[in-house]
Amino acid sequence: MSKKNKYVYSFGGGKADGNGSMKDLLGGKGAGLAEMSRSGVPVPPGFTITTDMCRYYYANGKKLPKDFEATMKQSMVLLEKQAGKKFGDNKLPLLVSVRSGAKFSMPGMMDTILNLGMNDQAVLGMADATGNPRFAWDAYRRFIQMFGDVVCDVSKAKFEHELDAVKHAKGAKQDTDLNVNDLQDVVKRYKELFLKEYGSEFPQDPWIQLVEARNAVFRSWGNDRAVTYRRLNKIPDDLGTAVNVQAMVFGNMGNDSGTGVGFTRNPSTGAKEFYGEYLTNAQGEDVVAGIRTPRPIVELEKDMPAVYAELRSITAKLEKHYRDVQDFEFTFEKGRLYMLQTRTGKRTAFAAVKIAVDMVKEKVLSKEEAIMRLDPDQINQLLHPIIDPSVSVKVLTKGLPASPGAATGKAVFTADDAAERGKTEPVILVREETNPDDIHGMDAAKGILTARGGMTSHAAVVARGMGKPCVAGCETIRVSEEKKQFVVNGTVVKENDWITIDGGTGRVIEGKVTLKEAALSAEFGELMKWADAIRTLKVRANADVPRDAIQAIKFGAEGIGLCRTEHMFFAEDRLPFMQEMIVADDEPARRVALDKLFKFQKDDFKGLFKEMKGYPVTIRTLDPPLHEFLPKTKEASEELSKKINVSGEKIWQKAQDLHEFNPMLGHRGCRLGITYPEITEMQARAIITAACELAKENIKVIPEIMIPLVGFVAELKDQVAIVHKAAKDAMESTGQKVKYMVGTMIEVPRGALTADEIAEVAEFFSFGTNDLTQMTMGFSRDDAGKFIKVYLDKKIFRDDPFQTLDQTGVGQLIDIAIKKGRKVKKDLKIGICGEHGGDPESVKFCHRSKFSYVSASPFRVPIARLAAAQAVIESKKAAPHRDK
Amino acid sequence: MSKKNKYVYSFGGGKADGNGSMKDLLGGKGAGLAEMSRSGVPVPPGFTITTDMCRYYYANGKKLPKDFEATMKQSMVLLEKQAGKKFGDNKLPLLVSVRSGAKFSMPGMMDTILNLGMNDQAVLGMADATGNPRFAWDAYRRFIQMFGDVVCDVSKAKFEHELDAVKHAKGAKQDTDLNVNDLQDVVKRYKELFLKEYGSEFPQDPWIQLVEARNAVFRSWGNDRAVTYRRLNKIPDDLGTAVNVQAMVFGNMGNDSGTGVGFTRNPSTGAKEFYGEYLTNAQGEDVVAGIRTPRPIVELEKDMPAVYAELRSITAKLEKHYRDVQDFEFTFEKGRLYMLQTRTGKRTAFAAVKIAVDMVKEKVLSKEEAIMRLDPDQINQLLHPIIDPSVSVKVLTKGLPASPGAATGKAVFTADDAAERGKTEPVILVREETNPDDIHGMDAAKGILTARGGMTSHAAVVARGMGKPCVAGCETIRVSEEKKQFVVNGTVVKENDWITIDGGTGRVIEGKVTLKEAALSAEFGELMKWADAIRTLKVRANADVPRDAIQAIKFGAEGIGLCRTEHMFFAEDRLPFMQEMIVADDEPARRVALDKLFKFQKDDFKGLFKEMKGYPVTIRTLDPPLHEFLPKTKEASEELSKKINVSGEKIWQKAQDLHEFNPMLGHRGCRLGITYPEITEMQARAIITAACELAKENIKVIPEIMIPLVGFVAELKDQVAIVHKAAKDAMESTGQKVKYMVGTMIEVPRGALTADEIAEVAEFFSFGTNDLTQMTMGFSRDDAGKFIKVYLDKKIFRDDPFQTLDQTGVGQLIDIAIKKGRKVKKDLKIGICGEHGGDPESVKFCHRSKFSYVSASPFRVPIARLAAAQAVIESKKAAPHRDK
Repeated sequence: MSKKNKYVYSFGGGKADGNGSMKDLLGGKGAGLAEMSRSGVPVPPGFTITTDMCRYYYANGKKLPKDFEATMKQSMVLLEKQAGKKFGDNKLPLLVSVRSGAKFSMPGMMDTILNLGMNDQAVLGMADATGNPRFAWDAYRRFIQMFGDVVCDVSKAKFEHELDAVKHAKGAKQDTDLNVNDLQDVVKRYKELFLKEYGSEFPQDPWIQLVEARNAVFRSWGNDRAVTYRRLNKIPDDLGTAVNVQAMVFGNMGNDSGTGVGFTRNPSTGAKEFYGEYLTNAQGEDVVAGIRTPRPIVELEKDMPAVYAELRSITAKLEKHYRDVQDFEFTFEKGRLYMLQTRTGKRTAFAAVKIAVDMVKEKVLSKEEAIMRLDPDQINQLLHPIIDPSVSVKVLTKGLPASPGAATGKAVFTADDAAERGKTEPVILVREETNPDDIHGMDAAKGILTARGGMTSHAAVVARGMGKPCVAGCETIRVSEEKKQFVVNGTVVKENDWITIDGGTGRVIEGKVTLKEAALSAEFGELMKWADAIRTLKVRANADVPRDAIQAIKFGAEGIGLCRTEHMFFAEDRLPFMQEMIVADDEPARRVALDKLFKFQKDDFKGLFKEMKGYPVTIRTLDPPLHEFLPKTKEASEELSKKINVSGEKIWQKAQDLHEFNPMLGHRGCRLGITYPEITEMQARAIITAACELAKENIKVIPEIMIPLVGFVAELKDQVAIVHKAAKDAMESTGQKVKYMVGTMIEVPRGALTADEIAEVAEFFSFGTNDLTQMTMGFSRDDAGKFIKVYLDKKIFRDDPFQTLDQTGVGQLIDIAIKKGRKVKKDLKIGICGEHGGDPESVKFCHRSKFSYVSASPFRVPIARLAAAQAVIESKKAAPHRDK
Repeated sequence: MSKKNKYVYSFGGGKADGNGSMKDLLGGKGAGLAEMSRSGVPVPPGFTITTDMCRYYYANGKKLPKDFEATMKQSMVLLEKQAGKKFGDNKLPLLVSVRSGAKFSMPGMMDTILNLGMNDQAVLGMADATGNPRFAWDAYRRFIQMFGDVVCDVSKAKFEHELDAVKHAKGAKQDTDLNVNDLQDVVKRYKELFLKEYGSEFPQDPWIQLVEARNAVFRSWGNDRAVTYRRLNKIPDDLGTAVNVQAMVFGNMGNDSGTGVGFTRNPSTGAKEFYGEYLTNAQGEDVVAGIRTPRPIVELEKDMPAVYAELRSITAKLEKHYRDVQDFEFTFEKGRLYMLQTRTGKRTAFAAVKIAVDMVKEKVLSKEEAIMRLDPDQINQLLHPIIDPSVSVKVLTKGLPASPGAATGKAVFTADDAAERGKTEPVILVREETNPDDIHGMDAAKGILTARGGMTSHAAVVARGMGKPCVAGCETIRVSEEKKQFVVNGTVVKENDWITIDGGTGRVIEGKVTLKEAALSAEFGELMKWADAIRTLKVRANADVPRDAIQAIKFGAEGIGLCRTEHMFFAEDRLPFMQEMIVADDEPARRVALDKLFKFQKDDFKGLFKEMKGYPVTIRTLDPPLHEFLPKTKEASEELSKKINVSGEKIWQKAQDLHEFNPMLGHRGCRLGITYPEITEMQARAIITAACELAKENIKVIPEIMIPLVGFVAELKDQVAIVHKAAKDAMESTGQKVKYMVGTMIEVPRGALTADEIAEVAEFFSFGTNDLTQMTMGFSRDDAGKFIKVYLDKKIFRDDPFQTLDQTGVGQLIDIAIKKGRKVKKDLKIGICGEHGGDPESVKFCHRSKFSYVSASPFRVPIARLAAAQAVIESKKAAPHRDK
């Protein structure tokens, strides 16, 4: 242990060794206490053992330096002086609390130990000195219980069992019904229990109590709950926790004592109002435990006007000091106020927006700061209907929160049922898993529930694209399409039974539930306007149909970054023609079917273009393998046979011929357009004809035709030639001229690696990061579910790479491609249209990597706009950095 | 047309404008004629129109510069002077031949036109001047036929039809039975036919004949045959062809005239003997057409001793001049010898080796030159049994030549039948396509024939690995496993019928055929020794079992670069334990099954290590997805149920649970070892235990344990820790110490991109270029068959990227990885173990990219050794280059 470094920081009496900026070393709580103390806020004195010691503890076989006891003793002497009491004194001893405090708040880590220093002697002295023996014995029994549970692993339930035994014997209902004698009995029982369970007597030496408690805090950093919490919240494992030792003050020393918690503004609505609750004659844990019902904080004004006034004044000062809503804890002991903690208050997304905007108006924050205050992911909540929180619901089970928002409707079990019934009543489509055949059903349903598949399964991706609630991978439900029902934990949900899903939490709820529609506040609009003024990255939406386009415009999209033409072919009225094209024997026969599809495509594009007038619309030519369009069974082939005048046997044979071992890596993307040039030709003709016909109506549109899955420049050349020829034909036959561009997806690693060659031909790039991630990592999102959880648990990667872009690997390829592409074409337009286009971290990466735009599903457009603004602000503050 | 450039090059009379180095401009034939002429070899005079003119022709709408006629006329004047005859003369006119001649010999391009300049007047003059009217009329009728066919597209068959009519009328059997009158009749009929078919009279103006013939040569550069030939032989399309116009000499002017072809050495055996054949009183085409049987060239010595002596002297000079075997054509006209052509003689692989080695001994070539003379792919022929070329066979159909060598045996239609019957008699396994279940059958069969799948299908890859003949993707056969037969073009081949396959050509042959075993010549051994002395790249083999290892050593492998442990699990006696492991409910149950597999694995490794003593052996931990080991049907699950005491239903359920959408991108490679650490542990324990047990017998081995499919360094860390622990346990329990290494495959693009991170942990890299190619290009080799032919036809890529490494894309990733890896570990051992390790072009790439070794299937080890030596020689000659 180096002499130079300081491992214990004292605070109290208007002074502190540390300050609020030292969260790394003192943890959030310790830094807050130091900052409060040095700001003159009345804080019970204490000291903080630094996170350095925690790291030392783990690095040295769970031991601390030998001379550390002496250091800690010096700090205790100072604390005794400030508190005016002696630790281990027999009369009115100094009692302390021991709390963990990491850099980031970690509710799952360790319980607090209160009243440490209490023992058989001290309890008597306390009883005597306070004239309140019941208080003293109650404090002692609480201490034994907490210490036993937290430090020595004696189960809380066993302590509760003893307490209940005494209460039962006395006929007491509540703890407060127990008198001094009863509590003495409890203490006796507690000590016996401790001896039996732990194997030695309850420690009487306060110093040993303190050392044990301190070590327990360090140990708690490594417990399962803490590890899991860190994993979920992406907190590094090597930060360590600080330990805060602080003089106890007592809210339970009579009716002039009390304790409470509060917020400087309403954390639910964001309204500027003092908000909180308190209890008199109580310790903090009583407020939390809910044994007694706390009173609204405003009543404190009548009760204890001086305390109330001081509290308002202090908290107002704290809010101003920290420039944010404060979530505080306080205790008053015999009329004297102590602040125990203050921290940034957690708030709903709605409140977050209001508070940020209000604070700009109050000139507390700049607009940039207000924007940085918001978590882009959190505002997702604001954009979707939610389950009315005031309604109680019966949760059947939980799945993955795959697409946010809530939906309520009658359960249906096939896409056809959903499509049919969805016309007249709300339905929820329940499937084992969905596939492209189900699109029409998903489209008609209010929400989707699947038993299999992860956050990036077909159901999840499509639902997010549609802005439709989805709970996916709900493994506890057993779906039977045949019986048209699902069973979950013994409950059978049949067709027509009402269910409700909450795609924001993954909850599956029995019955019909009232939903609250999303309503965007004026503050939200204002904040987004500020964000738009700051950001340089354009934000587009992925939209396949006019309805999506309308939604996208509403959420501020500046164009369409991806229109997937194949989704148009899955519609019931077009699918048979598509199928006819696929089973055709030769090019002439294919052309006959394509001619039928042409009119549909052209009208689809016209519809889309009309909504997006003036904005660019990027249209991807056909991408999925053709077998996705064909029937999956012999029976379905026979069914189709009736519609398209081809024998069922032939259809089924074709479906089998088209079978692929790895459809992801198969005959799809531009490979289709190269082997069947007439498909690309028809699509290009439809796009340009649509644009020309609108040009006649003076509606301008900028079509950007995008060739998918290009790995070789020769592929792109081949397709570009076809597009130009078809465009020329379309313009000649309509007698109109329109501008258009032809570009490519960069989604195959080879495409990224040869982006210089490709840029010679491409007029724009759009990174398809879904496929690029799959190919760069070598796992498909449909299959990764089998190991991705283990990978997250083992920290092989920090984030699901299908949600947040892998900047180290995939990002490296993207940067290579951008560098090579812009070397050839300096101003090459570069976008992203994978799922990552709506993920805040990934959007920020795109800003740093100098993308022209991101494209996200319509509901994530506001998130992308906000993240793009944050990226600008962040890069002003610091040189661009990359996460590892 | 620039005045500065020269577009026609004359030759003859011991002089020439050009020389032998001007193949780009004059084509191979033109350059050869110029070189021969200036070396004093008697060559009929003539001139060559350059390839520039061909390119001009295509670039300018199939027209030549206006002033070109004048240029050509000047050259003709010179030619007339040298020949002492006039072109278009009515008495004894100069007749010429017109031939194409590109830089590379292209047999498929254009036929030769002989006797050009002949017309109704000239024939009479010729008859008169030579006193041989039959010769004159025969020459005329031949000219009409050739010109009509080659220049004017009048079908050869129609000419033959007229000729046959005259022969039939005369009762003539051979052309030589026709007299002058008959030939005059033929000429009449030919001219009528020409008029009818072509629409105008046969051109009488010799200059027009010449211009038309020249243009026909230029056109022939773009005909289908030529385009296909260039595609197959990787000749660029923009080279163009030259046109050679040369005075005719006549071998058919009596018995003191004749013509022949020959080689300076035996092109079949390589023996140093004068080799060839000739005909007296004949033109060159008669030798080729086979109407008369030519005589062995030695007889010419008796026949025409002076001509023979001159020919031997000239050809010996030519061989010396060109320092290689010459393939020559000659004519003698009235006792005067003319050389018409000389070129490098094509030869068998066997001859190529002998000639190269002999020429070193004769001090004609250096060892380096001898090595460069060989085509590594060609020597493949030497390593496998072949069909005795002297036997005539009935070819049923052709498939892809997927794995070289010939095999003969009885047809069987299931892997089980092959395994059973293969024990006692030779069998050929015939399947729709193979999968990993079939391994035991493939192993027992002499050869494999499949109806589906490409050059890199499962059957092809496994067969090549086994060094076993395979014809794959034979789409004309219809295989019925149920009926145990296949049908091809109406022929039914039933179980037990003998068939023969030739994996070098793709032929499928009816019946049993005598095979010639491969026997490696002493010269071959010598040549390979020279190659080994030159190369710096080590060559290892991919080998899974001792038998492969023995073969590998025999072919000169210096270690095993890839041992696929899963192939051990597919063996009949182990598979049930593997299956038991897979269906186990939890880790303890898995461990029970793994313990059973341990002994097998350990013994397998001991067997392998014994064969490879002293050499490094790289062993890959389990790679394929687990479902590959499970039954594919409900029935098979019931069958298995009897063996492993698990219900069939459960097995079937597990098989379905493990189903993957894209197995290539699924739960495989190190992902298995991470989710089931006990598998890696068992394998590492088996490897190290085997090494330890051999160490006790003083047999040294260097195991290199290789973790597959690593994309994240954390994956490798996880597995390395398991290996080290298992190794420690194994050493402790055997009481032995052995050295070993742990490294990784680089086969996922992300692995390559983060090679610096990975090199911190890996002790070696081995590029798995099969997977790396699939992922970098985004197509799987199993599925690419659907479009790869179109891609090759459209020249989207030049080579099948699964055969020859894509240096631009995949190679770029490899170079990134090597650079990053060696930055961290300067001397990092780097290998390749994909199929490309046995491909000459790819081996050369590996040399340039500073690999430590390549690993190829045993039968390709000599090819890799030779290519590695060539790479050294090439890089001495030129700065390293990369193909586009």
